[in-house]
Amino acid sequence: MNEQLLFLVLDLMGTFVFAISGALAARQRGLDIFGIGVIAFITSCGGGIIRDISLGATPPAGLTNWHYLVTAIIASVLAIFLYDVLGRLKHPVLFFDAIGLGFFSVSGSQKSLLLGHNAEVAILLGLITASGGGVLRDVLLARVPVILKKEIYASAALVSSLLVVLGDYLSWPSFWKLWFPIVICVGLRALSLRYQLNLPSFGSISDNQKNPD
Amino acid sequence: MNEQLLFLVLDLMGTFVFAISGALAARQRGLDIFGIGVIAFITSCGGGIIRDISLGATPPAGLTNWHYLVTAIIASVLAIFLYDVLGRLKHPVLFFDAIGLGFFSVSGSQKSLLLGHNAEVAILLGLITASGGGVLRDVLLARVPVILKKEIYASAALVSSLLVVLGDYLSWPSFWKLWFPIVICVGLRALSLRYQLNLPSFGSISDNQKNPD
Amino acid sequence: MNEQLLFLVLDLMGTFVFAISGALAARQRGLDIFGIGVIAFITSCGGGIIRDISLGATPPAGLTNWHYLVTAIIASVLAIFLYDVLGRLKHPVLFFDAIGLGFFSVSGSQKSLLLGHNAEVAILLGLITASGGGVLRDVLLARVPVILKKEIYASAALVSSLLVVLGDYLSWPSFWKLWFPIVICVGLRALSLRYQLNLPSFGSISDNQKNPD
Repeated sequence: MNEQLLFLVLDLMGTFVFAISGALAARQRGLDIFGIGVIAFITSCGGGIIRDISLGATPPAGLTNWHYLVTAIIASVLAIFLYDVLGRLKHPVLFFDAIGLGFFSVSGSQKSLLLGHNAEVAILLGLITASGGGVLRDVLLARVPVILKKEIYASAALVSSLLVVLGDYLSWPSFWKLWFPIVICVGLRALSLRYQLNLPSFGSISDNQKNPD
Repeated sequence: MNEQLLFLVLDLMGTFVFAISGALAARQRGLDIFGIGVIAFITSCGGGIIRDISLGATPPAGLTNWHYLVTAIIASVLAIFLYDVLGRLKHPVLFFDAIGLGFFSVSGSQKSLLLGHNAEVAILLGLITASGGGVLRDVLLARVPVILKKEIYASAALVSSLLVVLGDYLSWPSFWKLWFPIVICVGLRALSLRYQLNLPSFGSISDNQKNPD
Repeated sequence: MNEQLLFLVLDLMGTFVFAISGALAARQRGLDIFGIGVIAFITSCGGGIIRDISLGATPPAGLTNWHYLVTAIIASVLAIFLYDVLGRLKHPVLFFDAIGLGFFSVSGSQKSLLLGHNAEVAILLGLITASGGGVLRDVLLARVPVILKKEIYASAALVSSLLVVLGDYLSWPSFWKLWFPIVICVGLRALSLRYQLNLPSFGSISDNQKNPD
């Protein structure tokens, strides 16, 4: 399998898994089949759409390239018909989600660098590409974005984006520049899930809700 | 009445009715008069603004053309002073809302095609133009967008956008290309309201809230 | 101190205070340290980012200029370690927040006019620059934006943006065009806080929540 094909497969796999996570959350909240499809599409493509709009690369790839839309539709259909099965497949879903996270952060940072923008833009847009879709999903479902609260998630994407920029600065060979950050991101995420690692926080929403004010 | 004038009248009528629906919802939630105006403006122009930003047509028409702003302000004033009357006029409001939905989906798709973008962009941006404002309204009022849950709403806009693209592909005469999708969209919406048609869903938020976890 | 340096100092002061308000709100809601940083950055730079995207000035200054990011990070660190102190400093924080509001509305309107856009764009983008970050903060924390409900806040930014456009139309000297709107905005906000002035509203969310339907 050559690298370009592998790249495409990983991109669609990330899209697919993010779409599954969106569709499952939407179904859980009682949305109709159209709402499920919309949330699946936004979860998987929303981060990339914000990235492209921020870069002035309009219309965004998520709207012009039918691969993304079809992937999100397939994921929605699966989430509707295989809801129970997917519920039991928690570990594989989290695994692919981690790969999607790593892949999206790397592709977001690289697209920014390719278009000639500086390191800060590349790092921030890597982070936005990887986590924007999940944030939009939670905003549309009227809840505080889980990725801002739970475990090491967006921070793994941040590390991966930092590594892309570092690799570009140090002129790492393209194999390393691409795969090393993905591996680190997936590894960080896996460790955080395995050992229930969380970044420090200071209180919780559920506590607040028990004692409003 | 020539066609261009009719087009303008329909556009402002759609804007007006969407603004009314936003202002009523904002007043219900206890926002102050400024907040009511902001929500009215965002509900009526938010979809078009997202469309224009996605197309790179900046600054968006909703920000440059004073017709939209003035229409939203008038709608807010009416929603404040005629709150009770408008509450009783439920059927006319829903009727104009359906026309706005049909009209915005057609204008969104046509603007995308005119700017030379492909069928997928035209369909998605027709849908976003028609439903984006309502989604933003609900996000700002911190609730799950009703259009993702209730009856046939955004899906009617989707059908209408599909028809615009089909009409463009088959080179329908411009009268048909414009009016046929609007009529279908309004008709679908009216049927769904009349017979309480819903797309299938699988559970509900209120159920979840009764039994969290 | 020359004017340009003063401008930069005021801009970063506004950014800093908005970041503090975001970080404090995020910490209160139990987000982890990464979530606190994200909310601080979005609160302080979100309005400017929406402005730049609306103007087609991509990538937005908030993503390209490291001053903003570093300011937001410093504010987050302070909000984490000096939470109790900042809680007691309520008056100074509100004071700087008012200055930030005035400054952001003026800079937003002026950037729009400088890029050759019309009065409506300048007024709306002044308002969006000043209040967009606070709205995004509240949307991400899943609550109705406070600035649409409480006291005179966004409306003070609106007055200030109107004055910038008026000053530009009447060719006021640049000193007046810049400082007069800021002083009026800060003054309006201070009066509203001192005398608990609110724009009229018609009911409240908490009432609705007590009696749903």
